[in-house]
Amino acid sequence: MNISLAELARHLDAELRGDGEQMISGVATLAGAGASDVSFLANNSYRSQLLDSKAGAVIVRPELADSVANAALVVANPYLAFARTTQLFDNRPILSSGIHPSAVVAATASIGRDVKIAANVVIGEHVILGDQCEIGAGSVIDDHCQLGVGCRLSANVSLYHDVTLGDHVRIHSGAVLGADGFGFAPNQGRWEKIAQLGGVRVGNNTEIGANTCIDRGALDDTVIGDDVILDNQIQIAHNVRIGDGCAIAACTGIAGSTRLGRNCTIAGGVGIAGHLTIGDRAHIAAAALITQSIGDGEMYGSGTSQMPLNEWKRSATRFRQLDSLAKRLQKLEKSQQGKA
Amino acid sequence: MNISLAELARHLDAELRGDGEQMISGVATLAGAGASDVSFLANNSYRSQLLDSKAGAVIVRPELADSVANAALVVANPYLAFARTTQLFDNRPILSSGIHPSAVVAATASIGRDVKIAANVVIGEHVILGDQCEIGAGSVIDDHCQLGVGCRLSANVSLYHDVTLGDHVRIHSGAVLGADGFGFAPNQGRWEKIAQLGGVRVGNNTEIGANTCIDRGALDDTVIGDDVILDNQIQIAHNVRIGDGCAIAACTGIAGSTRLGRNCTIAGGVGIAGHLTIGDRAHIAAAALITQSIGDGEMYGSGTSQMPLNEWKRSATRFRQLDSLAKRLQKLEKSQQGKA
Amino acid sequence: MNISLAELARHLDAELRGDGEQMISGVATLAGAGASDVSFLANNSYRSQLLDSKAGAVIVRPELADSVANAALVVANPYLAFARTTQLFDNRPILSSGIHPSAVVAATASIGRDVKIAANVVIGEHVILGDQCEIGAGSVIDDHCQLGVGCRLSANVSLYHDVTLGDHVRIHSGAVLGADGFGFAPNQGRWEKIAQLGGVRVGNNTEIGANTCIDRGALDDTVIGDDVILDNQIQIAHNVRIGDGCAIAACTGIAGSTRLGRNCTIAGGVGIAGHLTIGDRAHIAAAALITQSIGDGEMYGSGTSQMPLNEWKRSATRFRQLDSLAKRLQKLEKSQQGKA
Repeated sequence: MNISLAELARHLDAELRGDGEQMISGVATLAGAGASDVSFLANNSYRSQLLDSKAGAVIVRPELADSVANAALVVANPYLAFARTTQLFDNRPILSSGIHPSAVVAATASIGRDVKIAANVVIGEHVILGDQCEIGAGSVIDDHCQLGVGCRLSANVSLYHDVTLGDHVRIHSGAVLGADGFGFAPNQGRWEKIAQLGGVRVGNNTEIGANTCIDRGALDDTVIGDDVILDNQIQIAHNVRIGDGCAIAACTGIAGSTRLGRNCTIAGGVGIAGHLTIGDRAHIAAAALITQSIGDGEMYGSGTSQMPLNEWKRSATRFRQLDSLAKRLQKLEKSQQGKA
Repeated sequence: MNISLAELARHLDAELRGDGEQMISGVATLAGAGASDVSFLANNSYRSQLLDSKAGAVIVRPELADSVANAALVVANPYLAFARTTQLFDNRPILSSGIHPSAVVAATASIGRDVKIAANVVIGEHVILGDQCEIGAGSVIDDHCQLGVGCRLSANVSLYHDVTLGDHVRIHSGAVLGADGFGFAPNQGRWEKIAQLGGVRVGNNTEIGANTCIDRGALDDTVIGDDVILDNQIQIAHNVRIGDGCAIAACTGIAGSTRLGRNCTIAGGVGIAGHLTIGDRAHIAAAALITQSIGDGEMYGSGTSQMPLNEWKRSATRFRQLDSLAKRLQKLEKSQQGKA
Repeated sequence: MNISLAELARHLDAELRGDGEQMISGVATLAGAGASDVSFLANNSYRSQLLDSKAGAVIVRPELADSVANAALVVANPYLAFARTTQLFDNRPILSSGIHPSAVVAATASIGRDVKIAANVVIGEHVILGDQCEIGAGSVIDDHCQLGVGCRLSANVSLYHDVTLGDHVRIHSGAVLGADGFGFAPNQGRWEKIAQLGGVRVGNNTEIGANTCIDRGALDDTVIGDDVILDNQIQIAHNVRIGDGCAIAACTGIAGSTRLGRNCTIAGGVGIAGHLTIGDRAHIAAAALITQSIGDGEMYGSGTSQMPLNEWKRSATRFRQLDSLAKRLQKLEKSQQGKA
């Protein structure tokens, strides 16, 4: 990729201070950039690196334009402009056109235009792939799945039957959509399987990370909205509903039938119990356990701060006495009041 | 699927109050059911939905039979009857008969009757597949594995060598059985590998969720009992033993050589340290960390309740002072006693 | 495998007390070993099993040599000697030589000598596989990956493009290296993708567990050192750096750009926030959440001890009052001082 600063400025809708003919061939951090790289400053804590940076151009806010050593690309939102710049320089391999001869595609499947299907892919009966879909090597798409336009599955993705994706959905390797929800009726010390009859529905522009699981619904569907971003190793149980624009970081698990509103931000390692309602724009801190519903815009956490191991062991043990400590304190207070 | 209410009642051993000729073509929630659906009421908190439900029939306990608008299927355990009903309506695709031409099956493998092997499956030397096994696309079964009758592997499952499954075991996509246990001897800042010489043995009727890992044993086998249900993204380390009838929810990890008795219920996100003994029917609450053994029937938890973020930060910080707070309280109490 | 005690002693550099002609055909625990097995005692808590063991030979420290019933293999470090013994008895299947006819290997790939490629493997353009690499069935190696000498991938591993492995790297089934880091710029309630332009670099002799994910870097690479051991279901985010000799147990997650020094030991279920520095030889206890940097050799934990469920609920609730309890205690102390 080679682009002139003038072209890049046009693409980013940025004001260019510098030589528009200068060519840019890469994106780099302020510390790592050279004369042919563009860099960016979005976080003021990296501001000290700005003066020393050898970047050919830097994407900055207006108030920092004068601090840039070489060319400046001035925008209101440098992080967003940086994101768009990275997309120009994306170097991921493009699959070869058409269907690889080793792929196994059911005769009843409907394959759109310009679809790319890599080696050893398996596509089941009555599957519908929208135009420009790309299916990575070894991925399996079971019967009756429907993918919208421009969906992209990496290698070794598994979609069970009746999984529906909107347009431009991106799924990373090892992700599993539509496995059975964890539903069993206890029966004299054994477990009677509840067949999971619902499917999975995913909206448009949603991205699903590596080894993330989204289970199929028990009766109704499990539903993921539009513009949702799910990191790796996330577990979404049956009949969960995730609202549009939610962002969920890695290793988080959400139990059955819980609903998240729009634009929630859930940090990593969070556990959310089943049958809860999490309001729009709610935020949950890393590693929190959530067992009660949360209102719109509310922010919650749980757990304790990190401590040196020996001190921590003492506090962790004292925690067991917390209820009794509280009662003893109350008793002392009463006795004190009696004297006052 | 179409079944008359009379037939369904016979299948469930239910008392039918209503028209036995009425046809049922689906299962739905009370809120979502229409005239051709059967629904159920197992949890009294949904009782208010009973009157408004348009379900053609509802599975209920005897005391609620009169509250059902249309037909009632009266049983002692509606949730169990619901489970059996869902099995009748299971719509999962059935694999085509026989061995797909793209599958690679070793000449020394022994394949039972009515076995279905999907596209791109790889089956190693001396593998034994019992009658009626179904192996999903892209799954790999390495040498010397033995599967009982009626086992079902979804797509992209990986079994290492010497994994033994009982009858009717169900394994979901992305699950890995028999990877090396995490065993290394420290050696001057490096790690000397302990070859993992044991296997994995799984009992009958056990179900293993998507992307769950069960490591092979170091010397002896890792053993999962009969009728065990494991949710997604669970990690079972080497030489763990899980008793019959245990249920383990998603994202739980169990470290090496720990033993669970029968019929334990382990919630999601739990961590259990190594070399512990967990008694029969023990229960562990969500996200708990268990570092000491637990007796039969005991229930344990750990962690703190969720709090609004700012308040939580204060409590999380105060936690560091817990030992000193307890000592200061004790001192006050002594001083108080001195005065009394 | 059959080896005489004399040979085994030579291999382990051990002093043999017993009959060098005696043949050993297996490795077993003290409790499970028979006359043809070698066992070991590395942990004094198993010392009572030594006298009763039927093992043909036992690997022990010098001071315990006289307590062994049959032959003794005397070494300074029995656990290390045990590790080396297990390697002799490793029974894992060896892949067939050459490239399986069902594998799809790009014409531009460079395949070293004695490389073994199993069924249904897919290898992309310009991939370089060093001599003696073994690639398990169903694994996918995307364009421009480079593997050193003697790397071993189990079945169904996924490597995205531009992943570089050193020599003798071992990757277990379901692991995903090089999926996109979780980078997005917020844009009016939606998320603008930051293309992840970096790669993944892994050092020599590193082992990566089943279903573990290591994301590619945003601009620079994600880097894993030499002699690192990663257990199953670990999540390593973009631009993390893991120093040589680190050991990380299962279900741990490390957020973006955090750096671990050398020889850290991280227990299972740990969460480490992004942009932190963890010093050399740092230790983190199981299930801890780490949100602040840690110095060389420091040991940290967080969380609370396990408690019986009802007591725990009381303590977990009291935790919410911890800040107010501390303030009330302080008030009492002041009042006390006023009187003194």
